[in-house]
Formats: sequence, C-alpha cells, structure tokens
Amino acid sequence: MTLYFEDIEPGLTRDCGSVAVTREEMLEFAERYDPQPFHTDPEAAAASMFGGLIASGWLTAALSARLLVEGYMNDTASVGGRGMDDLRWHKPVRPGTTLSVEIEVLDTRAGDNPAYGHTETEVRTTDDEGDLVLTMVGLGLVEKREA
Amino acid sequence: MTLYFEDIEPGLTRDCGSVAVTREEMLEFAERYDPQPFHTDPEAAAASMFGGLIASGWLTAALSARLLVEGYMNDTASVGGRGMDDLRWHKPVRPGTTLSVEIEVLDTRAGDNPAYGHTETEVRTTDDEGDLVLTMVGLGLVEKREA
Repeated sequence: MTLYFEDIEPGLTRDCGSVAVTREEMLEFAERYDPQPFHTDPEAAAASMFGGLIASGWLTAALSARLLVEGYMNDTASVGGRGMDDLRWHKPVRPGTTLSVEIEVLDTRAGDNPAYGHTETEVRTTDDEGDLVLTMVGLGLVEKREA
Repeated sequence: MTLYFEDIEPGLTRDCGSVAVTREEMLEFAERYDPQPFHTDPEAAAASMFGGLIASGWLTAALSARLLVEGYMNDTASVGGRGMDDLRWHKPVRPGTTLSVEIEVLDTRAGDNPAYGHTETEVRTTDDEGDLVLTMVGLGLVEKREA
C-alpha cells in the first residue's frame, strides 16, 4: 500500500535492511568519485591514520540511499528529495562490512503546495558491530492523497 | 605545494573544473544506488513531474565530490571529511549535462587537536546554463604544519 503525505507521521520507523560493501566496489567507486589515496590505494591507506582501505563516505551514503529507497521511499508517493541535513560519517567503513539502515520520520509539514507536503526523515546506518557509521536527515516531498 | 591548515583561510576559492554526466552513467548509478523510477526507467521518468530521466542527486553529489577532491582536497593535507551540512539539490540534472564545481572556504577553526584543524568549505555545482544544481558545506579535517 502506497503511503501518501497524510499517512506519514513523526515517529514512523522502518527497518530498511542490509547490504555488504566489498573491497572491489570500494575501489571502483573511489576511483571514479572520490580519488583520495586512503580510498583508492591500499598502500597509501595502510600508511594513513586509517591503517588500511576505507570506503568513500559517498559510497556509504549512496548505499544508505539505496536501502532507504528500497525499504521506504518506493513504498511512498515520493516525488524525490530536496536535500540532506547533518550528514555525518561517524566511523570508517572497512571492506566486507555489512551496512544496515533504519529510518525514523522526525517531522512533517503540509506547506502551501496543494500537491505535496514536506517530510524530514533521519537515516541511521550501522555496521556489523552495531556502531553508527553514518547519520543524515533527508528532506522529502511526498504527494498528498487528495491531489 | 600542499596546503596545511595554517594556509587555509576563509575566502579562499578554487575553480575545480567540470565533468559531463552521461545517460549511461545515470542509469547505471541509479540501478545500484538510487532505484527511484524517475532515475532508472525512461518511460516512468517521462510520465513523472520531471518529464524525463534525471540524475540521482547522489550521483550529482558524488561527481561534485570528485571535482572537489581533484581540484582542492588532494592539494591539501586533508585527512578526510567529517560530514556535509545543508546539501541541497536545486535543479534536476539531465543526461549530457556538464557539471562545474567551485568551492569557497567559509570558516576555519584550530580546535583542540594539535595534529589537525577544522575547515568549512562551500561546494557550488552548476550546469551548462550556469544554474546552481547542488550546494553543500563540507566539514573537513586538515593537518597542521607543525604537527
């Protein structure tokens, strides 16, 4: 059942599932999108403060987005996102880590547009140890049922 | 010449160059990281409010990150980013668009750690028409020279 704006209330939570990050995907993504040495070069990474390869924070964000989309947004009448507040990378992500995402709606606002309303949704991404690796607050637009 | 924390002052700007977004990359990225119909399915996209395929905002962010890294961060003694504030997608990005990035250091803060200081850097991404498509403020950590 598709959730419309009227169906979404602060406190709504969803477990959005998990995805594993491979070393291969980490290197491929970083080569294209985030060529910092500790993301692309195993030797440079070993010599860095991280002591080994870590995932680009943008890969962690993109994989979190995938789980958010599959586990929540595609079940809503979402018309896309306006942006993200307070994106934070809390802990390095190593090859082989399984990332899990849960979300919680923090706020909703009907706004002036008759067609859609605004939502604020916190995204929390954890690693295999249950430690937070990423948090962010998505600013969404969701169709109103009566529209 | 590598820039250390002491070399970085508010008002520092850099032109970080350009990159083109192809339809193929848009579809491939969205399939893996952002499977919303208006990013992955040309027919669904044509029927959506966008009237055609648009890039995942995360692809726009990742390509902006690439230009930021190549045009600025890799010339600094950066030890990575803590996060991003106020990420906003201002305008849809269509296939074939060339994205250009410029950055401006907004603030710096020495903090308590003798090894590195904090920087806040605004990233502004524009399209072929010079319109803003993305803005965000990166929270960076940069080594101190004396460390």
